[in-house]
Amino acid sequence: MALPVVGIVMGSDSDWPVLAGAGEVLERFGIAYEMTVASAHRHPGKAAGYARGAREAGLKVIIAGAGGAAHLPGVIASWTTLPVIGVPVATAHLGGLDSLYSIVQMPRGVPVATVSIDGAVNAALLAVQILALESPELQEELGRYRDELAVRVEEQDRRLRRGGTEGS
Amino acid sequence: MALPVVGIVMGSDSDWPVLAGAGEVLERFGIAYEMTVASAHRHPGKAAGYARGAREAGLKVIIAGAGGAAHLPGVIASWTTLPVIGVPVATAHLGGLDSLYSIVQMPRGVPVATVSIDGAVNAALLAVQILALESPELQEELGRYRDELAVRVEEQDRRLRRGGTEGS
Amino acid sequence: MALPVVGIVMGSDSDWPVLAGAGEVLERFGIAYEMTVASAHRHPGKAAGYARGAREAGLKVIIAGAGGAAHLPGVIASWTTLPVIGVPVATAHLGGLDSLYSIVQMPRGVPVATVSIDGAVNAALLAVQILALESPELQEELGRYRDELAVRVEEQDRRLRRGGTEGS
Amino acid sequence: MALPVVGIVMGSDSDWPVLAGAGEVLERFGIAYEMTVASAHRHPGKAAGYARGAREAGLKVIIAGAGGAAHLPGVIASWTTLPVIGVPVATAHLGGLDSLYSIVQMPRGVPVATVSIDGAVNAALLAVQILALESPELQEELGRYRDELAVRVEEQDRRLRRGGTEGS
Amino acid sequence: MALPVVGIVMGSDSDWPVLAGAGEVLERFGIAYEMTVASAHRHPGKAAGYARGAREAGLKVIIAGAGGAAHLPGVIASWTTLPVIGVPVATAHLGGLDSLYSIVQMPRGVPVATVSIDGAVNAALLAVQILALESPELQEELGRYRDELAVRVEEQDRRLRRGGTEGS
Amino acid sequence: MALPVVGIVMGSDSDWPVLAGAGEVLERFGIAYEMTVASAHRHPGKAAGYARGAREAGLKVIIAGAGGAAHLPGVIASWTTLPVIGVPVATAHLGGLDSLYSIVQMPRGVPVATVSIDGAVNAALLAVQILALESPELQEELGRYRDELAVRVEEQDRRLRRGGTEGS
Amino acid sequence: MALPVVGIVMGSDSDWPVLAGAGEVLERFGIAYEMTVASAHRHPGKAAGYARGAREAGLKVIIAGAGGAAHLPGVIASWTTLPVIGVPVATAHLGGLDSLYSIVQMPRGVPVATVSIDGAVNAALLAVQILALESPELQEELGRYRDELAVRVEEQDRRLRRGGTEGS
Amino acid sequence: MALPVVGIVMGSDSDWPVLAGAGEVLERFGIAYEMTVASAHRHPGKAAGYARGAREAGLKVIIAGAGGAAHLPGVIASWTTLPVIGVPVATAHLGGLDSLYSIVQMPRGVPVATVSIDGAVNAALLAVQILALESPELQEELGRYRDELAVRVEEQDRRLRRGGTEGS
Repeated sequence: MALPVVGIVMGSDSDWPVLAGAGEVLERFGIAYEMTVASAHRHPGKAAGYARGAREAGLKVIIAGAGGAAHLPGVIASWTTLPVIGVPVATAHLGGLDSLYSIVQMPRGVPVATVSIDGAVNAALLAVQILALESPELQEELGRYRDELAVRVEEQDRRLRRGGTEGS
Repeated sequence: MALPVVGIVMGSDSDWPVLAGAGEVLERFGIAYEMTVASAHRHPGKAAGYARGAREAGLKVIIAGAGGAAHLPGVIASWTTLPVIGVPVATAHLGGLDSLYSIVQMPRGVPVATVSIDGAVNAALLAVQILALESPELQEELGRYRDELAVRVEEQDRRLRRGGTEGS
Repeated sequence: MALPVVGIVMGSDSDWPVLAGAGEVLERFGIAYEMTVASAHRHPGKAAGYARGAREAGLKVIIAGAGGAAHLPGVIASWTTLPVIGVPVATAHLGGLDSLYSIVQMPRGVPVATVSIDGAVNAALLAVQILALESPELQEELGRYRDELAVRVEEQDRRLRRGGTEGS
Repeated sequence: MALPVVGIVMGSDSDWPVLAGAGEVLERFGIAYEMTVASAHRHPGKAAGYARGAREAGLKVIIAGAGGAAHLPGVIASWTTLPVIGVPVATAHLGGLDSLYSIVQMPRGVPVATVSIDGAVNAALLAVQILALESPELQEELGRYRDELAVRVEEQDRRLRRGGTEGS
Repeated sequence: MALPVVGIVMGSDSDWPVLAGAGEVLERFGIAYEMTVASAHRHPGKAAGYARGAREAGLKVIIAGAGGAAHLPGVIASWTTLPVIGVPVATAHLGGLDSLYSIVQMPRGVPVATVSIDGAVNAALLAVQILALESPELQEELGRYRDELAVRVEEQDRRLRRGGTEGS
Repeated sequence: MALPVVGIVMGSDSDWPVLAGAGEVLERFGIAYEMTVASAHRHPGKAAGYARGAREAGLKVIIAGAGGAAHLPGVIASWTTLPVIGVPVATAHLGGLDSLYSIVQMPRGVPVATVSIDGAVNAALLAVQILALESPELQEELGRYRDELAVRVEEQDRRLRRGGTEGS
Repeated sequence: MALPVVGIVMGSDSDWPVLAGAGEVLERFGIAYEMTVASAHRHPGKAAGYARGAREAGLKVIIAGAGGAAHLPGVIASWTTLPVIGVPVATAHLGGLDSLYSIVQMPRGVPVATVSIDGAVNAALLAVQILALESPELQEELGRYRDELAVRVEEQDRRLRRGGTEGS
Repeated sequence: MALPVVGIVMGSDSDWPVLAGAGEVLERFGIAYEMTVASAHRHPGKAAGYARGAREAGLKVIIAGAGGAAHLPGVIASWTTLPVIGVPVATAHLGGLDSLYSIVQMPRGVPVATVSIDGAVNAALLAVQILALESPELQEELGRYRDELAVRVEEQDRRLRRGGTEGS
């Protein structure tokens, strides 16, 4: 089994249903990954340790998901210079706008690559796009993935035209 | 059967339940329309091709619905000078405000005629109003439609007054 | 001099600096227009009368701009079945979000084609696109206008590449 | 039966479940009221006629509820100088913020007294407070109503203290 | 000199530039008013005392302006059953949305009649409309005021048409 | 039984389900508390009296929860110099943003220590942290509480790693 | 000179103009404090070290100010059980709403006592209120401070009444 | 001179003042880049062509900045599988929230790595972090950059402590 090159980290296992989508994408592309729970606030030492050891451990990209005052992606990014992709997890009361602001509005010097609210699938695709820079195989596979998206659009299009009423 | 003069285009067939309302209005006014799935992001070539060929194909107005980073109406508008009506589709986390901003805040030079969130019925009515400029029949029919709206208000009014308690 | 086919209406002449951009676009396309001040709230009779007489007067499209509780476009639209284009005027305290909501969130049955905040230029372009449906000349001119936009992008591109520093 | 002195007006009978609370309060205070459906957009003539005849008809206060681009309260206010109380009705996608902005942000010269989202009960209480200015009986009854509110707070307080766990 | 029937109250004299507009309107209508600084937070006893004594003192309507966590109108309303009109004062960072929410979202039982952000002029007009219910003179004067608004619209309209360019 | 040192106060017993979490935390830390219903608007005298007598009664910290135009925490804070912790209760239409603004945006001079929307557990922890300043036992217990949080993160981490799919 | 009992910490010295207000209040109350720059992102080790050593160093309360993805208060709070007061610093584009969300929406277990946007003065007053729990002198001084606030309200009131026009 | 590996693309040269910060960072790290103006709306063919040819041309990362209905980053991303970093440019009326939503809320399948509003510096740093995955030299340089950030924090800290008043 290959050593993981992508780390998926979350503040609580209640975020897993959202982040699972990232795992599925990585598996589809044959990319080894690991999953970690490491709260920025309830276990800051673990989050810092995880981030500081990440490059050494062979990770190339870190996907971090969090909700509310979602500090985890930024805290991870403060302890490593690996690319960190942040997934704002939707919240009950503010729809995830609090998560989004807390992740995307990072200060000059320490970026977090932010995707859409609950956008774990896109976080993983972004990781694949980064890893593909040095892998013609992944580039090809990304091409196939995009082709599939287009094919599915075509299928939906045909189904809609057949099933729908075409006007007078 | 008449050639379609209105095109309804959406990024995914999951938007159809919202856009179906546009089809019903167009049918009521006897306006031929066609429906297309053509994602701005997952199949950009199709979206561009659709828009570039739209006038040639006889379309006069395009209704485009999309949600989230809702680029489809604007992308369609960038490839044609036909009037494009954008329908911001409601989103799970931000209520469709993301869709609204992505559609209505178009830069100088390339307009999209934006209607309310999930406002597909009004998008179709706007298309009818545009087509009616050269059609006395449609103008009359629009008049009848407005009269019906007013009649329904009167009916609701009567029902409310009868059924409701009138105070002391 | 041609009879006006586009009406530009505003609630107060303080909106004129914003709406002037619409006039300039219409002039460039050789489209006759008229301008009216007709507040939905401070002179509702005038607004209603204006809208009710608009088609008779030869107007084909109405551009209505307003700010705050921006009822003018919707009120105009309630008295005519001509296409009404609404321009949300920016406000001092809420940035025009109040104007945008008041214009775009029209109820089922009475649409307003909404453009961006302070988007008077695009409102006029939308009017031209509508009028062009029956005018090959306007269609051609719209094509030229789009070409100019593209040319300006190319010019900016060249200037940026020349003037900018190209990296090491 | 007394002639109505308060008019409750709404754009659609779908707003009645919200506005019913106003009726109940008025009944409790023995104030005669009438209910009307009179859309600002789908039947503008009726809304204008209603407002223009309101004072003549003996009304002293008008309560108008509407949602989305909620123009009804402002349109009513533009045709009468009676006090108009606006109730922003909650909306599916924007929570009623669109309604609130459309009602409260009226331009200088034509006020609408706005209450909370879905705040029909408070709209009626405000009407009672206005009518009470010339009625010692209503003033007394308002005093009793406030006393009841305070009594209910006391009851809740006692129940909470009894039922709750008091700490160690 | 007549005894004041309208009280204008604010939390700090820094709100006076906003609330001065209310005073000017009241003077125009010949309505005696008084002005008070009585912070809900920095001098709660004064605010409560003011509100409790207001009816006794001959006041009929209270206009209360505040910004931020703008509790003054609601606190005043909790101590009196006179109609209280709230003016949300614009704030530096949130544009007055904080003030608006704090004033308009009052709980069931204790209403505040809210006007637009910085809408002191409309607050005073609302007070006049309330007082006019028992004063044919004020009703007439309100009619004249509205007529003046309409005349000013007509004047702006004429000026715009003369000065503006009328299209080709 | 120890005299209560923390007071939990709310405007209505409908807020109890949210605030109950504060009680559970205080019990876990062995801190005596009392609960009160004392609306800022429906029973302002009680709220003022409660706050004025709080220090005398032995309270050291007050936790106040409220929703909408959530004045209770600020009103309590205006009548006492004890630390007041405000809990913005979520609202049906605006998600609690109205509550948050009404509590956190207090004017200079009278602070309220605000926690997250529905954040009663954190309000209680904050109270414990304040009380712990003079209690080595509470400091130790807070340390244990934090250790438990970290242990739970470790447990979640192990469970996720075991149960989850580890990539290819 | 007394050892500092309050620590004021900020992510950048550009926040100092906002936080200076906290220092002035502490000086007025004779409370020794220290100031630190310790970015959560650009120097996470320093921020963690500062927080972990804070209690040992004699600090009792920490005031932390930050803007944007304002993680500093939460990161500090994750490394200590001292009370942490967060000051959301206003931002150029979002008015400080991003800062507010990032500070106030902390997850269960690790509270930050949040004050208003740019509310450094209130942060310091909150710190004084906490320290006053064990200091009758500070309690008295807080009483005097509040009295001064009330006196200033009275002075403003007198000045407004004298200088203002009192109506007809 | 090295061939550019990073492309900076913007919709209009008016975005250059914001994006210039990206160029400076890339120069500091010795990374060759090119700059392009290629509007998604005013010159969609150029934007598509640019994106489709980007990998062939040797680019590894694309930084795209846009404001309002900011479609450029998403449109670029739809035509390439290279990593695309989006910079939401601040807007006059909505502070850049419209830009942010239009860039970050991309649909499943086509990610854009979004940074903060006007966050061009962080966009470039993210590009460097991605390129550093295969370059030990860039990794070292990133380490030095972070060290410099920390050193600057230390300097600010010392300056603040010296210059500031330390309390009593």
